[in-house]
Amino acid sequence: MSDALFATLQQLLGAAHVHSSDEAAQYLTDKQGRYTGQVIAAVHPANTEEVAAVVRACVALKAPIVVQGGNTGLMAGATPDASGRSVLLLLDRMNRVRQVDTDNDTLTVEAGCILQHVQDVARAAGRLFPLSLGAEGSCTIGGNLGTNAGGTAVLRYGNTRELTLGLEVVTAEGEIWHGLRGLRKDNTGYDLRDLYIGSEGTLGIITAATLKLFPQPLAQATALLAFDQLAQAVAFLSHARAGFGANLTAFELLSADCLALLREQFPDGPQPFKGASQPWFALIELSDNHGEQHAREAFERVLGEAFEQALIADALIAESLAQSEALWLLRENMSEAQKRAGRNMKHDISVPISQVVAFVAHTDAVLQQHFPGVRNFTFGHLGDGNLHYNVAHPLDSTVEAHMAQYAELSAMVHDSAHAHGGSISAEHGIGQRKVGMLGRYKSAVELDLMRRIKQALDPHNLLNPGKVLEVQP
Amino acid sequence: MSDALFATLQQLLGAAHVHSSDEAAQYLTDKQGRYTGQVIAAVHPANTEEVAAVVRACVALKAPIVVQGGNTGLMAGATPDASGRSVLLLLDRMNRVRQVDTDNDTLTVEAGCILQHVQDVARAAGRLFPLSLGAEGSCTIGGNLGTNAGGTAVLRYGNTRELTLGLEVVTAEGEIWHGLRGLRKDNTGYDLRDLYIGSEGTLGIITAATLKLFPQPLAQATALLAFDQLAQAVAFLSHARAGFGANLTAFELLSADCLALLREQFPDGPQPFKGASQPWFALIELSDNHGEQHAREAFERVLGEAFEQALIADALIAESLAQSEALWLLRENMSEAQKRAGRNMKHDISVPISQVVAFVAHTDAVLQQHFPGVRNFTFGHLGDGNLHYNVAHPLDSTVEAHMAQYAELSAMVHDSAHAHGGSISAEHGIGQRKVGMLGRYKSAVELDLMRRIKQALDPHNLLNPGKVLEVQP
Repeated sequence: MSDALFATLQQLLGAAHVHSSDEAAQYLTDKQGRYTGQVIAAVHPANTEEVAAVVRACVALKAPIVVQGGNTGLMAGATPDASGRSVLLLLDRMNRVRQVDTDNDTLTVEAGCILQHVQDVARAAGRLFPLSLGAEGSCTIGGNLGTNAGGTAVLRYGNTRELTLGLEVVTAEGEIWHGLRGLRKDNTGYDLRDLYIGSEGTLGIITAATLKLFPQPLAQATALLAFDQLAQAVAFLSHARAGFGANLTAFELLSADCLALLREQFPDGPQPFKGASQPWFALIELSDNHGEQHAREAFERVLGEAFEQALIADALIAESLAQSEALWLLRENMSEAQKRAGRNMKHDISVPISQVVAFVAHTDAVLQQHFPGVRNFTFGHLGDGNLHYNVAHPLDSTVEAHMAQYAELSAMVHDSAHAHGGSISAEHGIGQRKVGMLGRYKSAVELDLMRRIKQALDPHNLLNPGKVLEVQP
Repeated sequence: MSDALFATLQQLLGAAHVHSSDEAAQYLTDKQGRYTGQVIAAVHPANTEEVAAVVRACVALKAPIVVQGGNTGLMAGATPDASGRSVLLLLDRMNRVRQVDTDNDTLTVEAGCILQHVQDVARAAGRLFPLSLGAEGSCTIGGNLGTNAGGTAVLRYGNTRELTLGLEVVTAEGEIWHGLRGLRKDNTGYDLRDLYIGSEGTLGIITAATLKLFPQPLAQATALLAFDQLAQAVAFLSHARAGFGANLTAFELLSADCLALLREQFPDGPQPFKGASQPWFALIELSDNHGEQHAREAFERVLGEAFEQALIADALIAESLAQSEALWLLRENMSEAQKRAGRNMKHDISVPISQVVAFVAHTDAVLQQHFPGVRNFTFGHLGDGNLHYNVAHPLDSTVEAHMAQYAELSAMVHDSAHAHGGSISAEHGIGQRKVGMLGRYKSAVELDLMRRIKQALDPHNLLNPGKVLEVQP
């Protein structure tokens, strides 16, 4: 069967675009090196019709289909299983920009476009495509759509879901849904678009999207703020939202321990607030449609009021683009700083913003009780209630001993997020890493609804099986 | 069977909350008086558990369930059929505000809350709930969710879908999905929320929602602008989006014929631009988080640039709240002005903004060719590409003769919207009025996907049958 399918795929796409497992090894291990799969073939279709033909060929032989973008996901959602029964679908040849429509403020791109390229195309048209995240130089817009990627601009512009007007999708039967609509309003039936977004390739294969564009801000202003306590940061967030309105485009929290780690791992990097005693900091960004001076005045007004009302302890306002970039470098270096310091346990949780203080206090305390000495490196998108609640080994223990306790420790963090009305995966998705955890946090009713939808749209469970949802054969 | 179900419902809810068809006559005809239904009973459950119990009782006897909010819909989506086999579910007793969370900027309300009450509760908490539409004094948030209502603030804040974080839903089996999450980011499975929103009660019954709140703007500025041609208005929209950013909160188009109709029907009302020769006008609103003076300066700057670049022909800036209200009255009176002038054919279409000019030119010409003398009253939400493309009878003919041609004329308008990449229902939904039209504009693939979802979530077709989608028994 495998040989027959391989030959069929070669006929459909040309031999140059169909590779064996051995030839495709670079795609078969997830970014973090936790999972490695095997496939019948890895294929690179040139267009939507070829994707549909691949799906039909796979369906005919009941071969599962795994779609992969830039392979930057953290949940191994794009890594096939080890059975060797699957076909891996790579959309790197589908990287065309189909339309730039500045009057409609939309961009239609194929799924294989690298996110940074999409940003660049928007900028060249005098517009902003605001989705922005660490992996933007290698992740694809198809992957962003499949996982409903978040990032640092969600506070103002929303997740990938909110940035998308239309989709083109190949169904589990290998048919094409032409849903590339550039409409702000369209109430003509069920919202298929949002069902596919975030479904991680388990309901259909997204091949293209029509995305929203925004005006390019004329100026941006950045500041790093210090807070005497986390509750002060939450109160300031409300103040800033009221004072800046939609011009508040980032609100990134960093604990004092995060800043210390950055100083330690990047001794030549920026060292703001060195010696400061505050436990929490936030990087905020203001975008302005008028200009530099206007942005600066807004900053002075709103931060001035905040000082008067004791909503911030200290503030460092970037006076130049270079200073602004130095402040952003702190946030951008967090991933690398942690990597250099050795592995730690990452948790991508969200809670209602009103629960952030209670969540952190409770979870910190529970962990110290059960795992004395563990060190928290908590940072993230406070404006979205999304914290990267990362936990490193006690200094008197080893990374290995710490990581061996992943299951118990993570369950405590996730239980706490859940108990505070939160989510165990704010922006990273479920993939295969968290698929076994869903049963603990989703009700039987919700899991049943999800299974019904999966069964309805992918009755043979051929689209990315084993991801998002456990389906009984 | 009917008698048995009536008795069961009385037991479940108390006799005072279960009414016969005759007693419930006020709920059985749609707002426009086009459809009248019959029911076994109209019931007023007190809470979500009672809704679930009603659904289970109906399912046991295979009685369809129609949910109705304020009965303000234009597509008769909440009117039961004439078979007398259905139960009408009225959620007017479920009108509690469950939570106001200002730190999280969310509000949790039951589906029976009147939209204006939701706005008022937000305002009392110092926040804005931006959904705003003509029927806000009597429509319910449950109805807004069921139809994904739009309105005049979509340009800035989005449709009801974009304003909703979480839902509580009673399923077709009478189970409760507790999805009232107040999270900005949550990527843990399929997007059930958005599937229920806009499904017009055909997939589940929305009983409560967690909604987004926004800062109350400190100031608002209004202007009525005149354009030499429609293309100029579209070009100015881009300019205004760039110059005002998210502070541009309304962009409502009115044709010169609309202004003339308003003058005719409201001779004591405001008469701006009387005698002006421009064919198109737009009411724009700017919201500001700083203050009056700041808003005025932004207006002067952006409108000044627009004059220099010949993007507007004339402008009337409201100098006081009274003047602002007078300008808004024009837009708000459009519905009543048309009613006073006699019935006309209403079309709630949307197209990409870049297609608005071509759509209007093409459709106007086609109609004049086939129905000489018909009069266009085109207005709507240009910022969303959503036009109320309304067509009145020729002056040398009668309303009755004109309305008799609804099917042919509307098909031309809808065909044109479709040909321009648009939608035949931008914000009014499908209900029963447009259900027969979908087959003409949706592909077989899309209709099949919708039917699979309907079948998966409502296998016995008991939830609002005959609405949105035609399902073969």
